[in-house]
Amino acid sequence: MNLATSNGDAFAEPSVDLSELADAFRNARAFTARLCEPLEIEDMVAQSMPDASPVVWHLAHTTWFFETFLLKPFCPGYKPFHPQFEYLFNSYYNAVGEQFTRADRGLLTRPTVAQVRRYRESVEGCVNEFLAAGRFDDAAAVRGTVELGIQHEQQHQELILTDLKHLLSRNPLAPAYRSLPDAIESSDGMMTESSVATAAPIRFVDFPEQLAWIGYDGDEFAFDNERPRHRQFVDAFGIANRLVTNGEYLAFMEAGGYNRPEYWLSMGWSAVCENRWQSPLYWTQRDGRWCEFTLDGIQSLQMDAPVCHISYFEADAYARFAGLRLPTEAEWEIVASQTPVEGHFAESLRLHPDPAAGSSPIDQMFGDCWQWTSSPYIGYPGYRPPSGAIGEYNGKFMCNQYVLRGGSVATSRSHIRASYRNFFPPQARWQFTGIRLAT
Amino acid sequence: MNLATSNGDAFAEPSVDLSELADAFRNARAFTARLCEPLEIEDMVAQSMPDASPVVWHLAHTTWFFETFLLKPFCPGYKPFHPQFEYLFNSYYNAVGEQFTRADRGLLTRPTVAQVRRYRESVEGCVNEFLAAGRFDDAAAVRGTVELGIQHEQQHQELILTDLKHLLSRNPLAPAYRSLPDAIESSDGMMTESSVATAAPIRFVDFPEQLAWIGYDGDEFAFDNERPRHRQFVDAFGIANRLVTNGEYLAFMEAGGYNRPEYWLSMGWSAVCENRWQSPLYWTQRDGRWCEFTLDGIQSLQMDAPVCHISYFEADAYARFAGLRLPTEAEWEIVASQTPVEGHFAESLRLHPDPAAGSSPIDQMFGDCWQWTSSPYIGYPGYRPPSGAIGEYNGKFMCNQYVLRGGSVATSRSHIRASYRNFFPPQARWQFTGIRLAT
Amino acid sequence: MNLATSNGDAFAEPSVDLSELADAFRNARAFTARLCEPLEIEDMVAQSMPDASPVVWHLAHTTWFFETFLLKPFCPGYKPFHPQFEYLFNSYYNAVGEQFTRADRGLLTRPTVAQVRRYRESVEGCVNEFLAAGRFDDAAAVRGTVELGIQHEQQHQELILTDLKHLLSRNPLAPAYRSLPDAIESSDGMMTESSVATAAPIRFVDFPEQLAWIGYDGDEFAFDNERPRHRQFVDAFGIANRLVTNGEYLAFMEAGGYNRPEYWLSMGWSAVCENRWQSPLYWTQRDGRWCEFTLDGIQSLQMDAPVCHISYFEADAYARFAGLRLPTEAEWEIVASQTPVEGHFAESLRLHPDPAAGSSPIDQMFGDCWQWTSSPYIGYPGYRPPSGAIGEYNGKFMCNQYVLRGGSVATSRSHIRASYRNFFPPQARWQFTGIRLAT
Amino acid sequence: MNLATSNGDAFAEPSVDLSELADAFRNARAFTARLCEPLEIEDMVAQSMPDASPVVWHLAHTTWFFETFLLKPFCPGYKPFHPQFEYLFNSYYNAVGEQFTRADRGLLTRPTVAQVRRYRESVEGCVNEFLAAGRFDDAAAVRGTVELGIQHEQQHQELILTDLKHLLSRNPLAPAYRSLPDAIESSDGMMTESSVATAAPIRFVDFPEQLAWIGYDGDEFAFDNERPRHRQFVDAFGIANRLVTNGEYLAFMEAGGYNRPEYWLSMGWSAVCENRWQSPLYWTQRDGRWCEFTLDGIQSLQMDAPVCHISYFEADAYARFAGLRLPTEAEWEIVASQTPVEGHFAESLRLHPDPAAGSSPIDQMFGDCWQWTSSPYIGYPGYRPPSGAIGEYNGKFMCNQYVLRGGSVATSRSHIRASYRNFFPPQARWQFTGIRLAT
Ligand SMILES: [Fe+3]
Ligand SMILES: [Fe+3]
Ligand SMILES: [Fe+3]
Ligand SMILES: [Fe+3]
Repeated sequence: MNLATSNGDAFAEPSVDLSELADAFRNARAFTARLCEPLEIEDMVAQSMPDASPVVWHLAHTTWFFETFLLKPFCPGYKPFHPQFEYLFNSYYNAVGEQFTRADRGLLTRPTVAQVRRYRESVEGCVNEFLAAGRFDDAAAVRGTVELGIQHEQQHQELILTDLKHLLSRNPLAPAYRSLPDAIESSDGMMTESSVATAAPIRFVDFPEQLAWIGYDGDEFAFDNERPRHRQFVDAFGIANRLVTNGEYLAFMEAGGYNRPEYWLSMGWSAVCENRWQSPLYWTQRDGRWCEFTLDGIQSLQMDAPVCHISYFEADAYARFAGLRLPTEAEWEIVASQTPVEGHFAESLRLHPDPAAGSSPIDQMFGDCWQWTSSPYIGYPGYRPPSGAIGEYNGKFMCNQYVLRGGSVATSRSHIRASYRNFFPPQARWQFTGIRLAT
Repeated sequence: MNLATSNGDAFAEPSVDLSELADAFRNARAFTARLCEPLEIEDMVAQSMPDASPVVWHLAHTTWFFETFLLKPFCPGYKPFHPQFEYLFNSYYNAVGEQFTRADRGLLTRPTVAQVRRYRESVEGCVNEFLAAGRFDDAAAVRGTVELGIQHEQQHQELILTDLKHLLSRNPLAPAYRSLPDAIESSDGMMTESSVATAAPIRFVDFPEQLAWIGYDGDEFAFDNERPRHRQFVDAFGIANRLVTNGEYLAFMEAGGYNRPEYWLSMGWSAVCENRWQSPLYWTQRDGRWCEFTLDGIQSLQMDAPVCHISYFEADAYARFAGLRLPTEAEWEIVASQTPVEGHFAESLRLHPDPAAGSSPIDQMFGDCWQWTSSPYIGYPGYRPPSGAIGEYNGKFMCNQYVLRGGSVATSRSHIRASYRNFFPPQARWQFTGIRLAT
Repeated sequence: MNLATSNGDAFAEPSVDLSELADAFRNARAFTARLCEPLEIEDMVAQSMPDASPVVWHLAHTTWFFETFLLKPFCPGYKPFHPQFEYLFNSYYNAVGEQFTRADRGLLTRPTVAQVRRYRESVEGCVNEFLAAGRFDDAAAVRGTVELGIQHEQQHQELILTDLKHLLSRNPLAPAYRSLPDAIESSDGMMTESSVATAAPIRFVDFPEQLAWIGYDGDEFAFDNERPRHRQFVDAFGIANRLVTNGEYLAFMEAGGYNRPEYWLSMGWSAVCENRWQSPLYWTQRDGRWCEFTLDGIQSLQMDAPVCHISYFEADAYARFAGLRLPTEAEWEIVASQTPVEGHFAESLRLHPDPAAGSSPIDQMFGDCWQWTSSPYIGYPGYRPPSGAIGEYNGKFMCNQYVLRGGSVATSRSHIRASYRNFFPPQARWQFTGIRLAT
Repeated sequence: MNLATSNGDAFAEPSVDLSELADAFRNARAFTARLCEPLEIEDMVAQSMPDASPVVWHLAHTTWFFETFLLKPFCPGYKPFHPQFEYLFNSYYNAVGEQFTRADRGLLTRPTVAQVRRYRESVEGCVNEFLAAGRFDDAAAVRGTVELGIQHEQQHQELILTDLKHLLSRNPLAPAYRSLPDAIESSDGMMTESSVATAAPIRFVDFPEQLAWIGYDGDEFAFDNERPRHRQFVDAFGIANRLVTNGEYLAFMEAGGYNRPEYWLSMGWSAVCENRWQSPLYWTQRDGRWCEFTLDGIQSLQMDAPVCHISYFEADAYARFAGLRLPTEAEWEIVASQTPVEGHFAESLRLHPDPAAGSSPIDQMFGDCWQWTSSPYIGYPGYRPPSGAIGEYNGKFMCNQYVLRGGSVATSRSHIRASYRNFFPPQARWQFTGIRLAT
């Protein structure tokens, strides 16, 4: 496997120097550990649904990734940590071998959290040594693989937060991921309704028709699915200046949004009926007031914060209700490529979306909430996955999913960019997902 | 509801004269009856799966369509045939009202086939009188609705054939829809293996990159989903001169196609494993030879006829196996708009795809088999469904389906055109669906 | 296979003469045909649930039974009617061979009803000739098999009625099996509420403790599961003088019976919640009045007629609500063996249970409704099924079912007796099942 | 709620003195803690299937039982430990209130194991004080409730072991519950095949026909379902001198037992086909030799040890294969009431069944494996559950389950007796269940 050189469309052509890369590796791994600090062992083992994984599984799987794709092929004499970990912690790479059933990851009470931590330390030690030694036959491939492993680690950091949030939300005790810092907590506890919706009025910024270049064209890391850069013709469009707020979404609900099929795709309406959706995933009423479950426990719903944890179906229905639509991913990328990558990211550990600042013509393009686009997730013209197991990373999932853009409060700032394509099935709600409108 | 005038993007602006339209109506209705002639009453009642409907239900539903969208709104004094038919034979129009459960249509042993035939005659009589009288407040809307009803009737003619084929195939007796005409039947019965694969070698015809206009631009009937006509940038591509044959597909099977995950989308591989797919839907082995179930019973597999009754997943896997890909719908339409609409259609009552003639540079663009494109089914830029119930015809299904192009042996010649967009979920196999390759 | 002689516990040792038996055969077959007279072909093909079968399947299967167990083994030179009918119409006899999937019987549109009628005529002709010729190597076995086939035919006559009732009830048109004879129909149509509940007050007749002989001890036909006759010790008990009425059951409903878990077995409560049971199977409200679907269409609920079409769970819950219990099958048999076999049976073609006459100390022991007993269906002490395929008739179903006694309006008078054991799973509601209480 | 006095059929009329009772309470609680000692926190949180519960849930629920049924009603001024524990740790008592979904118990990562341990200590402290103070209005009721709580604790000790065994078995690492003590471990590790089947030949001990008294008649604790004592007529029978061994069961397998429907109940055969059963639950092959997963990890199969972890269906099929049958529970109780309560129980911490000693005429009546009887679990004649919530303990489960007798290696010696009735559905395999044959 030669990630960087075997395939022109492949993941990465990083030119950073090795010590920077090693630092990035250590930082990424340390941030994963940082995210787990507030957790009890119990929280790390449970799996709340087949789509989510236990935290300890994420810890092991991200380690397995470095072991499988870096140490085994590139580090001569590397001896695997445990003979069965290849099977247990392989997520979906058929070319590597069979995988333990995804839906049963919550049954793996062994290796224990402590043992997985030792697995992490062992692999980290080997990677550090290997990079420090710096003797590789194929330096580009090594660099590309380390970079990919770091990006992969960051993706699983986001999943740790979202999977955990889902798990904790299923517990009637509604436990918080962490105790809320004093500074944030309001005087009378969590139930203070946010004063008043002060978000700026929604406006649309116009863009002219154009034959646009879409896809990554830099020389830093980017995923295979952001390439090849190619032309798309895009008609004139307008994009909203900020995300849709909780208050705006509540108006949709109060207009009977969840009970009127005319707003919904047929599959969306089925999802509403079957799952009895009547609000975003984590909304709940307490004493007649809307609250939402957050990583800091149940909080009053902030009316001018962006609506979050909604499916594509809900985003699409809201847009239809509003007489508008969701942007295509090309439209979104045209806008984003002219916008600085600023916003609320995982590094802040705020872990909950905030109201738009209102200080820029177009706010919240990055961070806060992933933004559903109307674009099904397909390969760009000329796309071909890299060869080998790593080709299974993205390409085989290009079916029945929609593209999301922009990152969220659970995404690292260093992970996101204008060309970044996230993807989830239209019914998924447990990610930090929100709505950007277009005309 | 005003189909033609209320909405510029809507279905139709036909300018045919009324007597032509009335003839087209009668012809379409008569062809539906013609298709049912070989059937026993028993065959018309059963439902083989939730996706399929009983023939008698199709007979009633297509009649319901004219009653609901033409007679009730436009024909003053029209009295509905039966008070509960609105509920029983509404397929999915929420704006019309609740619908009887789709999966339970096989429970409707009443109205009987004879009663449904009387329902058809009654409604046909009213439509004929109404059109003959020719006094409408809104002539364009009437014409548009009749035209839509005819097209709808034709779509259900195709479904009658495919649903019936599926039903008969589930019977261990493998009953034929009709006895094979002598001319077709071979001397020693159905098991004659087709002599030799004589299909022309596969070649690719090149098309240059272009900013193409896509979508319907004529002034005859077209569906809302074929509009608005708009520009798409398309890179240079090549298109295969014919459909993939049974013989070529068999080579994929013999190369372990159904057992090698590397050829499949992740969801496709799941479908293979869960449904234990090992061949196209109607293939079966008899005495070590491959046969296929057809509307004329079980027949030897013809090696140079196009492979048929495959899912998108199989089409996509085959293309990957072949080192090629499926065309996008824009690519397909560029080619098709330069190709005469000729081929094997329902009118011939051949009802099974034939080998490519090899007489044109690009064969089989129309008829024989619907051709899976790699394009998810979404609205064209600027698409908005018509207002009212009829807006539910196409728009709400734009999710998790793929576009198919070109029509099949079960499609009427008068129904298909270069801009026509059919759509099915990627796992669907019971339509006449095949593979066109692209480079 | 030698039913009568090979196994002392087996089905039958009939001593009737052959011409009587041949008459009984013809009568049984003719009654099956009589039951189908009011039906449309459409009604005969559909299957409303996996537990029910299409009428045409019953017609074929009862014929298959004579072909498989009588003609093939005993009639030299018999040539099977069709090579695949052995597979298609085998219900569950593994020793005979594989069976077509039970839940898919509604897909068998061929053989047509007309073809199945020819199958019936053909097999009937052979049986008649065979019996008329009267030359058997093993006369007892032949007689036993014919007798068993007749009893089997009668069981399926009851199933034809109950499966059909279930099918018709699922149609929103609520079609009647037959038009109601004038004499029965009330002047203002079906909605006349029955005047007044005139059923005699419920009373309990006492029986002393005893070491009772239970099981069949006559020398006519009886099923294997009615044997061996054996002793059971039974404590003193009281039995109700009649079945529980609709009016009494309605009082249970009005007391919140379907919403109070304390009346229900745990599995019963789950069934209530999952299926949202709120009344007996065929009850429905029209304009605020309770009606029930019958084979004569929707009728006003007769308050003093016995409650019918309830599960064991409902019978058990009602008894608990009433502070009473269901009888064991031994208790029931002690009472029934002292009671003449009189009541409302299938021969009358009334096809709906009637109020108790009140003329006997204990009414309705036979006919009207099968009576759920509290006895799980197990083999009697020393029970062993007959050898061969026919041993699968009863024995292998002795698990997770409850015994019902007494027959119903859909049972032939000539089919029932005091020792007769019917059995269904506790959640079954589509048979004519009611409640007899005990103390 | 007055368990002892309100209802003559109720659980218990213990006359032990209070300090003995308090000792028994402390011992039972301590043994639960003892069983958890070898566990990691991770092992205590996971739930392997809806029928099983996490260990920590068992720890909390058994505590909830004392809190709900003893402290709240009898201990004036008792303040519940946590307001939501009533909901979280209620298993199925509808009269107490709603319950957290059983299948989701594995989502409860909070309260943590440490918090549940504090819950246990707190409630234990209150119970100890309450009993030490000894001032009760209704001493019999208090005593009865404490006794019931102890028995309940013991039942959950067994479930802790069986649920845990199931969980660990699902992990490909096959972790042992504990490291095997040296004394037990064989020299060359776990894979030593047991020398030779030395179990005594199977023999049958005869018992004459009798009108037997069945059910508990002592004055110590017994469950409501062991009462009322009543008479049953039992025909002459023979009972096997020991349990069926692994070696004998293997002969059934090698004779095609799992592939021959003639040995199986219809529902049993469905279970075999659907679940692809081909051996007892924990059997597995390693290098061509049969092993089984135990609480000490994977061990060679001991041919003369009793077969264990089989369903009723398998026990019944084996008996049919052997030309024999399972005993009724009355037969079993006649034998057991003449047999000393000796055997391998939980106190020994052996935790795996042993070969029969062969030293008594009838071995293994108690301990080793629960013995499936052929008796469906129903109430004895005259049975009525106690009033109040505690009446839900046993009575509502009397449907579609079979009675098991004798206890197992996971049952406490002090918990079992000749009249004790355990019950599980016929498909259950994760308890320590085996086969005793009868003639
Ligand atoms: Fe991953
Ligand atoms: Fe339609
Ligand atoms: Fe039958
Ligand atoms: Fe419990």
